[in-house]
Amino acid sequence: MRVLGVDPGLTRCGVGVVDGAPGRPLRMVACGVVRTPAELDVAHRLLQIEEGLELWFDRHQPELVAVERVFAQHNVRTVMGTAQASAVAMLCATRRGIPVTLHTPSEVKAAISGNGRADKAQVGAMVTRLLRLDAPPKPADAADALALAICHIWRGAATDRIAAAVAAARPKEYRR
Amino acid sequence: MRVLGVDPGLTRCGVGVVDGAPGRPLRMVACGVVRTPAELDVAHRLLQIEEGLELWFDRHQPELVAVERVFAQHNVRTVMGTAQASAVAMLCATRRGIPVTLHTPSEVKAAISGNGRADKAQVGAMVTRLLRLDAPPKPADAADALALAICHIWRGAATDRIAAAVAAARPKEYRR
Repeated sequence: MRVLGVDPGLTRCGVGVVDGAPGRPLRMVACGVVRTPAELDVAHRLLQIEEGLELWFDRHQPELVAVERVFAQHNVRTVMGTAQASAVAMLCATRRGIPVTLHTPSEVKAAISGNGRADKAQVGAMVTRLLRLDAPPKPADAADALALAICHIWRGAATDRIAAAVAAARPKEYRR
Repeated sequence: MRVLGVDPGLTRCGVGVVDGAPGRPLRMVACGVVRTPAELDVAHRLLQIEEGLELWFDRHQPELVAVERVFAQHNVRTVMGTAQASAVAMLCATRRGIPVTLHTPSEVKAAISGNGRADKAQVGAMVTRLLRLDAPPKPADAADALALAICHIWRGAATDRIAAAVAAARPKEYRR
Protein backbone atom coordinates (compact mmCIF):
# COMPACT_ATOMS: atom_id res chain seq x y z
CA MET A 1 0.00 0.00 0.00
CA ARG A 2 1.04 3.57 -0.62
CA VAL A 3 0.71 5.98 2.31
CA LEU A 4 1.08 9.75 2.30
CA GLY A 5 2.14 11.07 5.71
CA VAL A 6 1.45 14.71 6.53
CA ASP A 7 3.12 16.59 9.39
CA PRO A 8 0.87 19.66 9.37
CA GLY A 9 2.16 23.20 9.78
CA LEU A 10 1.53 26.62 8.30
CA THR A 11 5.19 27.50 7.73
CA ARG A 12 6.41 24.02 6.80
CA CYS A 13 3.95 21.24 6.12
CA GLY A 14 5.97 18.00 5.89
CA VAL A 15 4.93 15.37 3.34
CA GLY A 16 6.31 11.88 2.82
CA VAL A 17 5.17 9.02 0.60
CA VAL A 18 6.07 5.43 1.51
CA ASP A 19 5.19 2.12 -0.15
CA GLY A 20 5.02 -0.94 2.06
CA ALA A 21 3.08 -3.55 3.97
CA PRO A 22 3.47 -4.98 7.47
CA GLY A 23 6.43 -7.39 7.51
CA ARG A 24 7.74 -6.28 4.11
CA PRO A 25 10.59 -3.87 3.29
CA LEU A 26 9.55 -0.22 3.09
CA ARG A 27 10.31 2.02 0.14
CA MET A 28 10.42 5.81 0.18
CA VAL A 29 8.68 7.22 -2.89
CA ALA A 30 9.23 10.92 -2.15
CA CYS A 31 9.37 13.46 0.64
CA GLY A 32 9.43 17.22 1.00
CA VAL A 33 7.65 20.20 2.49
CA VAL A 34 4.93 22.61 1.42
CA ARG A 35 6.07 26.03 2.62
CA THR A 36 4.05 29.21 3.00
CA PRO A 37 5.45 32.67 3.80
CA ALA A 38 4.76 34.00 7.31
CA GLU A 39 3.95 37.46 5.92
CA LEU A 40 0.90 36.13 4.07
CA ASP A 41 -2.50 36.12 5.82
CA VAL A 42 -3.71 32.79 7.20
CA ALA A 43 -6.48 32.38 4.60
CA HIS A 44 -3.99 32.59 1.71
CA ARG A 45 -1.49 30.37 3.52
CA LEU A 46 -4.18 27.70 3.84
CA LEU A 47 -4.97 28.04 0.15
CA GLN A 48 -1.27 27.60 -0.74
CA ILE A 49 -1.10 24.51 1.47
CA GLU A 50 -4.16 23.12 -0.31
CA GLU A 51 -2.62 23.79 -3.71
CA GLY A 52 0.70 22.28 -2.62
CA LEU A 53 -0.89 19.15 -1.15
CA GLU A 54 -3.08 18.67 -4.23
CA LEU A 55 0.11 18.38 -6.30
CA TRP A 56 1.40 15.65 -3.95
CA PHE A 57 -1.91 13.78 -4.21
CA ASP A 58 -1.97 14.12 -8.00
CA ARG A 59 1.61 13.03 -8.48
CA HIS A 60 1.76 10.12 -6.04
CA GLN A 61 -1.85 8.85 -5.85
CA PRO A 62 -1.70 7.62 -2.23
CA GLU A 63 -4.21 4.96 -1.13
CA LEU A 64 -4.11 6.03 2.51
CA VAL A 65 -3.28 9.23 4.35
CA ALA A 66 -1.83 9.58 7.85
CA VAL A 67 -1.95 12.98 9.54
CA GLU A 68 -0.40 13.95 12.86
CA ARG A 69 -3.06 14.46 15.52
CA VAL A 70 -2.75 17.98 16.92
CA PHE A 71 -3.16 18.63 20.63
CA ALA A 72 -4.17 21.91 22.17
CA GLN A 73 -1.69 21.56 25.03
CA HIS A 74 1.25 22.18 22.68
CA ASN A 75 2.65 25.65 22.05
CA VAL A 76 -0.54 27.74 22.06
CA ARG A 77 0.93 30.22 19.58
CA THR A 78 1.40 27.75 16.77
CA VAL A 79 -1.22 25.14 17.59
CA MET A 80 -4.10 26.93 15.86
CA GLY A 81 -2.17 27.13 12.59
CA THR A 82 -1.19 23.49 12.92
CA ALA A 83 -4.82 22.48 13.50
CA GLN A 84 -5.87 24.51 10.45
CA ALA A 85 -3.17 23.01 8.22
CA SER A 86 -4.24 19.52 9.37
CA ALA A 87 -7.83 20.39 8.40
CA VAL A 88 -6.65 21.18 4.87
CA ALA A 89 -4.81 17.84 4.64
CA MET A 90 -7.90 15.96 5.89
CA LEU A 91 -10.12 17.79 3.39
CA CYS A 92 -7.82 17.07 0.43
CA ALA A 93 -7.82 13.34 1.26
CA THR A 94 -11.50 12.97 2.13
CA ARG A 95 -12.61 14.88 -0.95
CA ARG A 96 -10.83 12.21 -3.02
CA GLY A 97 -12.36 9.40 -0.97
CA ILE A 98 -8.98 8.48 0.55
CA PRO A 99 -9.20 7.22 4.16
CA VAL A 100 -7.44 9.45 6.70
CA THR A 101 -6.04 8.25 10.00
CA LEU A 102 -4.68 10.48 12.75
CA HIS A 103 -1.70 9.34 14.81
CA THR A 104 -0.33 11.09 17.87
CA PRO A 105 3.36 12.03 17.92
CA SER A 106 4.02 9.43 20.63
CA GLU A 107 2.28 6.68 18.64
CA VAL A 108 4.57 7.52 15.73
CA LYS A 109 7.72 7.60 17.86
CA ALA A 110 6.81 4.36 19.61
CA ALA A 111 6.01 2.65 16.31
CA ILE A 112 9.27 3.47 14.60
CA SER A 113 11.75 3.59 17.49
CA GLY A 114 10.10 1.60 20.28
CA ASN A 115 10.19 4.75 22.43
CA GLY A 116 7.19 7.10 22.59
CA ARG A 117 9.48 9.87 23.84
CA ALA A 118 12.20 9.55 21.19
CA ASP A 119 13.76 12.84 20.13
CA LYS A 120 13.94 14.32 16.60
CA ALA A 121 17.43 12.89 15.98
CA GLN A 122 16.33 9.37 16.94
CA VAL A 123 13.26 9.60 14.69
CA GLY A 124 15.42 10.87 11.83
CA ALA A 125 17.94 8.04 12.37
CA MET A 126 15.23 5.36 12.38
CA VAL A 127 13.54 6.79 9.27
CA THR A 128 16.94 6.76 7.52
CA ARG A 129 17.60 3.14 8.54
CA LEU A 130 14.10 1.80 7.81
CA LEU A 131 13.97 3.40 4.37
CA ARG A 132 17.66 2.57 3.66
CA LEU A 133 18.53 6.19 2.88
CA ASP A 134 22.04 7.63 2.72
CA ALA A 135 21.25 10.48 5.12
CA PRO A 136 18.33 11.65 7.29
CA PRO A 137 15.68 13.42 5.19
CA LYS A 138 15.71 17.20 5.61
CA PRO A 139 14.04 19.28 6.86
CA ALA A 140 12.89 17.42 9.99
CA ASP A 141 9.25 17.98 8.94
CA ALA A 142 9.81 15.74 5.91
CA ALA A 143 11.36 13.05 8.14
CA ASP A 144 8.38 13.33 10.53
CA ALA A 145 5.96 12.90 7.64
CA LEU A 146 7.82 9.74 6.52
CA ALA A 147 7.71 8.47 10.12
CA LEU A 148 3.93 9.00 10.12
CA ALA A 149 3.58 7.03 6.89
CA ILE A 150 5.72 4.18 8.27
CA CYS A 151 3.75 4.18 11.54
CA HIS A 152 0.55 3.94 9.56
CA ILE A 153 1.78 1.05 7.42
CA TRP A 154 2.75 -0.89 10.55
CA ARG A 155 -0.19 0.01 12.77
CA GLY A 156 -2.64 0.53 9.98
CA ALA A 157 -3.45 -2.99 8.86
CA ALA A 158 -5.75 -3.57 11.84
CA THR A 159 -6.96 0.03 12.11
CA ASP A 160 -7.95 0.17 8.45
CA ARG A 161 -10.08 -2.96 8.75
CA ILE A 162 -11.90 -1.36 11.69
CA ALA A 163 -12.33 1.94 9.81
CA ALA A 164 -13.67 0.12 6.75
CA ALA A 165 -16.18 -1.74 8.91
CA VAL A 166 -17.27 1.51 10.57
CA ALA A 167 -17.59 3.22 7.18
CA ALA A 168 -19.68 0.34 5.83
CA ALA A 169 -22.02 0.56 8.85
CA ARG A 170 -22.49 4.31 8.35
CA PRO A 171 -25.67 5.79 6.79
CA LYS A 172 -25.17 6.20 3.05
CA GLU A 173 -25.33 10.02 2.99
CA TYR A 174 -22.10 10.26 5.03
CA ARG A 175 -20.13 8.03 2.68
CA ARG A 176 -18.11 9.21 -0.29
CA MET B 1 -21.95 45.21 0.06
CA ARG B 2 -22.94 41.63 0.83
CA VAL B 3 -21.13 39.95 3.71
CA LEU B 4 -21.22 36.30 4.74
CA GLY B 5 -20.46 35.87 8.44
CA VAL B 6 -19.24 32.47 9.65
CA ASP B 7 -19.26 31.40 13.31
CA PRO B 8 -17.10 28.29 12.92
CA GLY B 9 -17.81 25.00 14.69
CA LEU B 10 -17.80 21.30 13.91
CA THR B 11 -21.23 20.54 15.36
CA ARG B 12 -22.94 23.77 14.34
CA CYS B 13 -21.25 26.18 11.96
CA GLY B 14 -23.31 29.39 11.99
CA VAL B 15 -23.78 31.30 8.73
CA GLY B 16 -25.43 34.65 8.14
CA VAL B 17 -25.66 36.86 5.07
CA VAL B 18 -26.24 40.61 5.44
CA ASP B 19 -26.46 43.39 2.86
CA GLY B 20 -25.45 46.86 3.97
CA ALA B 21 -23.00 49.73 4.07
CA PRO B 22 -21.76 51.95 6.90
CA GLY B 23 -24.49 54.47 7.80
CA ARG B 24 -27.19 52.69 5.79
CA PRO B 25 -29.92 50.31 6.99
CA LEU B 26 -28.90 46.67 7.16
CA ARG B 27 -30.83 43.86 5.52
CA MET B 28 -30.69 40.19 6.46
CA VAL B 29 -30.52 38.00 3.36
CA ALA B 30 -30.44 34.62 5.08
CA CYS B 31 -29.08 32.79 8.10
CA GLY B 32 -28.73 29.23 9.29
CA VAL B 33 -26.29 26.57 10.40
CA VAL B 34 -24.27 23.84 8.74
CA ARG B 35 -24.48 20.85 11.10
CA THR B 36 -22.36 17.72 11.18
CA PRO B 37 -23.00 14.63 13.31
CA ALA B 38 -20.65 14.10 16.27
CA GLU B 39 -20.39 10.37 15.49
CA LEU B 40 -18.67 11.08 12.16
CA ASP B 41 -14.86 11.27 12.04
CA VAL B 42 -13.32 14.76 11.88
CA ALA B 43 -12.16 14.41 8.27
CA HIS B 44 -15.69 13.69 7.04
CA ARG B 45 -17.18 16.40 9.26
CA LEU B 46 -14.81 18.93 7.65
CA LEU B 47 -15.85 17.69 4.21
CA GLN B 48 -19.53 18.13 5.10
CA ILE B 49 -18.83 21.65 6.36
CA GLU B 50 -17.06 22.42 3.09
CA GLU B 51 -19.98 21.09 1.06
CA GLY B 52 -22.48 22.99 3.22
CA LEU B 53 -20.57 26.27 3.01
CA GLU B 54 -20.13 25.91 -0.75
CA LEU B 55 -23.93 25.92 -1.07
CA TRP B 56 -24.11 29.17 0.91
CA PHE B 57 -21.44 30.74 -1.30
CA ASP B 58 -23.17 29.54 -4.48
CA ARG B 59 -26.61 30.69 -3.43
CA HIS B 60 -25.75 34.09 -1.95
CA GLN B 61 -22.57 35.15 -3.77
CA PRO B 62 -21.06 37.18 -0.91
CA GLU B 63 -18.50 39.86 -1.77
CA LEU B 64 -16.78 39.67 1.61
CA VAL B 65 -16.46 37.02 4.30
CA ALA B 66 -16.06 37.58 8.04
CA VAL B 67 -14.95 34.65 10.21
CA GLU B 68 -14.68 34.57 13.99
CA ARG B 69 -11.05 34.51 15.11
CA VAL B 70 -10.45 31.44 17.24
CA PHE B 71 -8.31 31.65 20.35
CA ALA B 72 -6.49 28.75 21.93
CA GLN B 73 -7.34 29.87 25.45
CA HIS B 74 -11.01 28.89 25.00
CA ASN B 75 -12.32 25.46 25.93
CA VAL B 76 -9.40 23.26 24.91
CA ARG B 77 -11.70 20.36 24.03
CA THR B 78 -13.59 22.15 21.29
CA VAL B 79 -11.05 24.71 20.16
CA MET B 80 -9.24 22.42 17.73
CA GLY B 81 -12.46 21.59 15.92
CA THR B 82 -13.39 25.26 15.82
CA ALA B 83 -9.99 26.16 14.37
CA GLN B 84 -10.38 23.43 11.75
CA ALA B 85 -13.90 24.54 10.78
CA SER B 86 -12.62 28.12 10.47
CA ALA B 87 -9.88 26.85 8.13
CA VAL B 88 -12.55 25.34 5.87
CA ALA B 89 -14.46 28.64 5.78
CA MET B 90 -11.27 30.58 4.96
CA LEU B 91 -10.39 28.10 2.19
CA CYS B 92 -13.86 28.27 0.61
CA ALA B 93 -13.68 32.06 0.47
CA THR B 94 -10.06 32.42 -0.63
CA ARG B 95 -10.43 29.79 -3.35
CA ARG B 96 -13.14 32.02 -4.86
CA GLY B 97 -10.99 35.12 -4.47
CA ILE B 98 -13.30 36.56 -1.81
CA PRO B 99 -11.45 38.59 0.88
CA VAL B 100 -11.68 37.11 4.38
CA THR B 101 -11.42 39.13 7.57
CA LEU B 102 -11.17 37.67 11.07
CA HIS B 103 -12.89 39.41 13.97
CA THR B 104 -12.53 38.48 17.63
CA PRO B 105 -15.71 37.80 19.64
CA SER B 106 -15.16 40.98 21.65
CA GLU B 107 -14.74 43.09 18.51
CA VAL B 108 -18.07 41.75 17.31
CA LYS B 109 -19.84 42.35 20.63
CA ALA B 110 -18.40 45.83 20.94
CA ALA B 111 -19.36 46.70 17.36
CA ILE B 112 -22.98 45.69 17.64
CA SER B 113 -23.78 46.39 21.31
CA GLY B 114 -21.13 48.86 22.42
CA ASN B 115 -20.01 46.32 25.03
CA GLY B 116 -17.16 43.89 24.28
CA ARG B 117 -18.42 41.61 27.06
CA ALA B 118 -22.07 41.48 26.01
CA ASP B 119 -23.75 38.12 26.63
CA LYS B 120 -25.49 35.90 24.06
CA ALA B 121 -28.93 37.34 24.83
CA GLN B 122 -27.73 40.91 24.34
CA VAL B 123 -26.08 40.00 21.02
CA GLY B 124 -29.26 38.23 19.91
CA ALA B 125 -31.38 41.24 20.89
CA MET B 126 -29.17 43.70 19.02
CA VAL B 127 -29.07 41.51 15.90
CA THR B 128 -32.88 41.32 16.01
CA ARG B 129 -33.20 45.08 16.37
CA LEU B 130 -30.55 46.04 13.78
CA LEU B 131 -31.98 43.69 11.16
CA ARG B 132 -35.61 44.56 12.11
CA LEU B 133 -36.51 40.91 12.69
CA ASP B 134 -39.59 39.67 14.55
CA ALA B 135 -37.57 37.40 16.86
CA PRO B 136 -33.93 36.60 17.59
CA PRO B 137 -32.49 34.24 14.95
CA LYS B 138 -32.07 30.67 16.19
CA PRO B 139 -29.89 28.83 16.94
CA ALA B 140 -27.52 31.28 18.63
CA ASP B 141 -24.77 30.28 16.16
CA ALA B 142 -26.83 31.81 13.32
CA ALA B 143 -27.29 35.03 15.33
CA ASP B 144 -23.54 35.13 16.03
CA ALA B 145 -22.82 34.74 12.31
CA LEU B 146 -25.15 37.66 11.52
CA ALA B 147 -23.43 39.72 14.25
CA LEU B 148 -20.09 38.98 12.58
CA ALA B 149 -21.41 40.14 9.22
CA ILE B 150 -22.81 43.35 10.75
CA CYS B 151 -19.55 43.99 12.60
CA HIS B 152 -17.69 43.57 9.33
CA ILE B 153 -19.96 45.98 7.45
CA TRP B 154 -19.45 48.63 10.11
CA ARG B 155 -15.75 48.10 10.82
CA GLY B 156 -14.89 46.84 7.39
CA ALA B 157 -14.92 49.97 5.28
CA ALA B 158 -11.53 51.09 6.63
CA THR B 159 -10.10 47.58 7.10
CA ASP B 160 -10.93 46.57 3.53
CA ARG B 161 -9.12 49.56 2.10
CA ILE B 162 -6.03 48.60 4.12
CA ALA B 163 -6.33 44.94 3.07
CA ALA B 164 -6.67 45.94 -0.58
CA ALA B 165 -3.56 48.11 -0.32
CA VAL B 166 -1.62 45.27 1.32
CA ALA B 167 -2.82 42.83 -1.35
CA ALA B 168 -1.77 45.23 -4.10
CA ALA B 169 1.70 45.57 -2.59
CA ARG B 170 2.12 41.78 -2.39
CA PRO B 171 4.27 39.86 -4.92
CA LYS B 172 2.09 38.66 -7.78
CA GLU B 173 2.44 34.91 -7.07
CA TYR B 174 0.57 35.32 -3.76
CA ARG B 175 -2.40 37.07 -5.33
CA ARG B 176 -5.50 35.34 -6.66
